[in-house]
Amino acid sequence: MTERVSDIGEFGLIRRIDELVNREGIRSERVTVGIGDDTAAFLPRPGYELLVTCDCIVEGRHYLPEYIRPLDLGRRAMGVNVSDIGAMGGKPLYALISLGLKAETSVQDVEEIYRGFLLELAPFGASIIGGNITKSGNGMFIDITLIGEVEQGKAVRRSGARPGDIILVTGYPGQSAAGLQLLLHEPGDSKIKEHPLVKIYNTPSHRAQVGETIAETGCASALIDTSDGFLGDLGHICEQSGVGAELFKEKFPIGEQLREAALRLRADPYDFFLGDSDDYELIITCRPQDVPRIRSAVSQCCPVLVTEVGRITGKAGEIFLLLPGGTKLPVKPSGWDHFRKSERKK
Amino acid sequence: MTERVSDIGEFGLIRRIDELVNREGIRSERVTVGIGDDTAAFLPRPGYELLVTCDCIVEGRHYLPEYIRPLDLGRRAMGVNVSDIGAMGGKPLYALISLGLKAETSVQDVEEIYRGFLLELAPFGASIIGGNITKSGNGMFIDITLIGEVEQGKAVRRSGARPGDIILVTGYPGQSAAGLQLLLHEPGDSKIKEHPLVKIYNTPSHRAQVGETIAETGCASALIDTSDGFLGDLGHICEQSGVGAELFKEKFPIGEQLREAALRLRADPYDFFLGDSDDYELIITCRPQDVPRIRSAVSQCCPVLVTEVGRITGKAGEIFLLLPGGTKLPVKPSGWDHFRKSERKK
Repeated sequence: MTERVSDIGEFGLIRRIDELVNREGIRSERVTVGIGDDTAAFLPRPGYELLVTCDCIVEGRHYLPEYIRPLDLGRRAMGVNVSDIGAMGGKPLYALISLGLKAETSVQDVEEIYRGFLLELAPFGASIIGGNITKSGNGMFIDITLIGEVEQGKAVRRSGARPGDIILVTGYPGQSAAGLQLLLHEPGDSKIKEHPLVKIYNTPSHRAQVGETIAETGCASALIDTSDGFLGDLGHICEQSGVGAELFKEKFPIGEQLREAALRLRADPYDFFLGDSDDYELIITCRPQDVPRIRSAVSQCCPVLVTEVGRITGKAGEIFLLLPGGTKLPVKPSGWDHFRKSERKK
Repeated sequence: MTERVSDIGEFGLIRRIDELVNREGIRSERVTVGIGDDTAAFLPRPGYELLVTCDCIVEGRHYLPEYIRPLDLGRRAMGVNVSDIGAMGGKPLYALISLGLKAETSVQDVEEIYRGFLLELAPFGASIIGGNITKSGNGMFIDITLIGEVEQGKAVRRSGARPGDIILVTGYPGQSAAGLQLLLHEPGDSKIKEHPLVKIYNTPSHRAQVGETIAETGCASALIDTSDGFLGDLGHICEQSGVGAELFKEKFPIGEQLREAALRLRADPYDFFLGDSDDYELIITCRPQDVPRIRSAVSQCCPVLVTEVGRITGKAGEIFLLLPGGTKLPVKPSGWDHFRKSERKK
């Protein structure tokens, strides 16, 4: 019989999670108080700034329980936070997990979600040091606070892009959004979960190690992850740096799988690239002469594509798409907005 | 016309919150990146440990929107976290706010909730440095991560109580629980919101400054706030310290208002004292010879009652209630458990 959260209660569940984290997780020497007291406590490293981010995923909004395994859900929820730390050039250290659960949630599922968290933290030697469990009104939510560190003065912000800078992007933004659309449009197809883009949607990659490597070069003028979609996040850079951008459409990294999926969905693959997605790639800006140094640093870190897709201009807030024929189209950053559905591209 | 979250969208709301926090909040010099980047960043102080806690309150579970003003809701949500930092002997520094909102939530209400947060942070010079906004499935939730600091080695844990230690408690635990019951049992009474105990329920106090003062004496062997109820939290101390406790019923601080409310509710005022409540008082254990030092430190900090209610014993996990006639009753720590309703006292 499935063991439910209501069978073992809040404190029973906390004990089980505590045991799992102690057994399967990493315990940092700098953590002075872990799970089980009024707060967690740790000793920061001298010479480092601390980075803090929180991100919440809600059942039915950010994920569809019928399509994602609990382990992947945990990875996904932690991955978006790891990505944010990486997009500052930092390294994840400690996570706090706030869960909103239904009484009928299975204990095994909660444990699997935690295994997903630990899987994402392990490569960084990062650990879970605290959290909170509550009964949610309707639908589960997972809210994670992730603390990281970066060498003092080395954090890369959104606000440093300058006219003339090159715009680089990692990987293939848009694949995850296409994966989600495949899931939603072909729910009857039992093989759909095995489609490469659906797998990318369910276990999104992040580029945290790449971000850390880029920050170490000291060459990036701005850095952001594409959590609000490529155009949305380029828009954040432009807004906060007081600059504009020109994008070269023919240079966009759009792979064969995305082209095929777009055909199947009767959609434009470039819309997937520009719009909301869950790829958690990085947008990097830097001076033209620094591009080789960044490429070289990234290639030594991991085999990820880095593509030059445009340049920063002095026209604050204006983003143009340059088509192969020479046409120049103004585009508007939209990005994921939970509340204003009417403004969304899709 | 009321402005709704759906009218200005996620990014519009973030801008409004950012403006409010900049205008009405405190900006710490050690914060190197505030709201609006991938993460917040700050420089920790040398010689200090960092404390981190998170606590979530959910509409309909932890508060009743029809009975609480948005400002008080913000104070309440922040207060529970401030209390946790204080219960380690620390001082709050930085908050991250994760909000789950309904599209129809009024923008003004969100701003008032933030004013409530800032009101609770101001006495400590603490600030809001980041957060996240998402659309909730059903019912709002407010999840706060609060970071604090404590001088290295001065944090007071739950695990240090020793046989022979005195058990002290601040204030009047149980008043808040009685206030909630008055609200629930007499919803038709329009004057009920003005009842002193209902006011205590709606704007719970915390003893964070007292906790910090106690930690500075170095005399407390264990410290905890009563967020799981007096007995629940004394149970946590006993469990983590491997000890037991004896409580002197006639010494419990039960005020006239609680006695009257209990009469009105046909309840036992001692059940309110021992059970789940939202008072966020402190339970302190210390050696008998250190009681005067703790009393003196607390009285120099603020005018709060400190009552000796029992002593720690060597019988691990056993808690007894000593009645005036000499009877000795075993009692079981229950405390607030969100999932196992059947085990709750009330």
